[in-house]
Amino acid sequence: MHKTGIIGSGLIGSSWAIVFARAGCEVAVFDQDPEKFEASRAYIRENLDSLAGLGMIVDAEKVGQRITFTADLQEAVRDKAYIQEAVFEQLEVKREVFARMDQLLRPGSVVGSSSSGIPASCFTESLTNRQGCLVAHPVNPPHLIPLVEIVPAPWTDQSAVDFTFGLMKDCGQAPILVRAEVEGFILNRLQGALLNEAWWLYQEGYASAADIDKTVRDGLGMRWSFMGPFQTIDLNSPKGIREYAERLSPLYLSVARSRSDPQPWSREAIQNAEEEVRDKRIEGNIPRSRLWRDKLLLAFKKWRIDSGVE
Amino acid sequence: MHKTGIIGSGLIGSSWAIVFARAGCEVAVFDQDPEKFEASRAYIRENLDSLAGLGMIVDAEKVGQRITFTADLQEAVRDKAYIQEAVFEQLEVKREVFARMDQLLRPGSVVGSSSSGIPASCFTESLTNRQGCLVAHPVNPPHLIPLVEIVPAPWTDQSAVDFTFGLMKDCGQAPILVRAEVEGFILNRLQGALLNEAWWLYQEGYASAADIDKTVRDGLGMRWSFMGPFQTIDLNSPKGIREYAERLSPLYLSVARSRSDPQPWSREAIQNAEEEVRDKRIEGNIPRSRLWRDKLLLAFKKWRIDSGVE
Repeated sequence: MHKTGIIGSGLIGSSWAIVFARAGCEVAVFDQDPEKFEASRAYIRENLDSLAGLGMIVDAEKVGQRITFTADLQEAVRDKAYIQEAVFEQLEVKREVFARMDQLLRPGSVVGSSSSGIPASCFTESLTNRQGCLVAHPVNPPHLIPLVEIVPAPWTDQSAVDFTFGLMKDCGQAPILVRAEVEGFILNRLQGALLNEAWWLYQEGYASAADIDKTVRDGLGMRWSFMGPFQTIDLNSPKGIREYAERLSPLYLSVARSRSDPQPWSREAIQNAEEEVRDKRIEGNIPRSRLWRDKLLLAFKKWRIDSGVE
Repeated sequence: MHKTGIIGSGLIGSSWAIVFARAGCEVAVFDQDPEKFEASRAYIRENLDSLAGLGMIVDAEKVGQRITFTADLQEAVRDKAYIQEAVFEQLEVKREVFARMDQLLRPGSVVGSSSSGIPASCFTESLTNRQGCLVAHPVNPPHLIPLVEIVPAPWTDQSAVDFTFGLMKDCGQAPILVRAEVEGFILNRLQGALLNEAWWLYQEGYASAADIDKTVRDGLGMRWSFMGPFQTIDLNSPKGIREYAERLSPLYLSVARSRSDPQPWSREAIQNAEEEVRDKRIEGNIPRSRLWRDKLLLAFKKWRIDSGVE
């Protein structure tokens, strides 16, 4: 398997390290602040142990040994086939780190950015190696949720797209191709559309935040989590997606037109929702709630694999 | 447990019969066409056997014996505490069946309509027992997906709302309250918002239907299927939902404004999507694909129960 580098040792970078090491790649994790390595090591160790506990990897220690840490960017970049950038989601930060990497890259290596919405064309245009750069946007955390959005810039080489696709598949991820750069890509546009409607329903008082969460969690989300929206409607009409679309397109158009002047989510609604949602946190604590989430995601991933969904 | 009636012996009515009988209720299933009873009986038998096979009910035969069939509306209605209407989703059909039931209802009984979008006020206004009528909208199929939207009309008694909530909870369903009638209620407004975006992305050529399905199935849907959208974003920011909302509201507003003149889903896109989605059907066959879906939903429901999600 390939030599890989990860730029940034936060939660996303650490989870990416598990993805690549699990599949047999060597991984060098870079951070300019070496004080962060201990937290990253602990996160990786705990998650590898959990994966081993469910039999989803054979030898946690061996996988962990493939991961090294470095505060020297050159070491994380120079001889790598693939580099995954996972720094803070801010244009200036991405620009700077891509410019620094550009000096150090081996010709032909590919760099995927974890950017969740900023397209690669905004921070790679003037680079020497821009044809090897693209977005490879994961879902948090990538070692448990397989989807990766591959979004090439107009100047990205097809070979870089193909390489990233192949690597992600080899690592057990589920890559999709976003054919042209679009604000929010596919995932966050879909999430945003649903969130915009959810906030509107909440602001207008039609339902509590808990009940809106329930509608997705105990309703829509159950089918979506193994079928997606098109396949869901295909099986929700005796004659399939076309009959469904022709029958219900007018309803959904009417729903869209009833909110055709989109407004920002209101401060008051955000404050009220926070009070409601806070009650769902484990002991009122976000990090502890994330551990709960990741434990469930891990068990769910195992169920999906055992059931043939993944 | 209560005596219940089901009006309509199609897939939804048959699945409702399982919901109530599984919880210990007596269930009388009405259909004006008794030739449909055999298919309903077979559906119920197969699904009770599947539930028993996974240990989710103890005695399939005993549960099945609580369900009887009748072509006499009076028998399905007169001495029942709760009646679930599950006829064809068309205003005239709902109006007629509610008017006929109105003559036969015991005072104080409650009638829930399975309507997925038509509010109860459109077909109950002139009834003698209108204060006992409301919408109890399930997700298909209700014996596997617990969510039920309870949508009272302006004249629905609070006691009817409370009774329906209690009954649904006793039956292991997950009821939510829609506080005022709104087109599409909560579930289909959320589904519609996501579908409108999905169709737009597809029509504009940003991704294939398969890749859009994957984005939800292998990405968004995994967290949504046990957390819902608000809890998901609460755990997707170190500081919780408020920080997330303040940071990302502008992006999502911009996404919404980029499509502020909603159009019907295009015929061409529907046709193309049908061709793509057809390939995912088991042996090109919708009924067989639904069996696959329901088998996975059943296994998923068991996983959710075992994991404490349900």
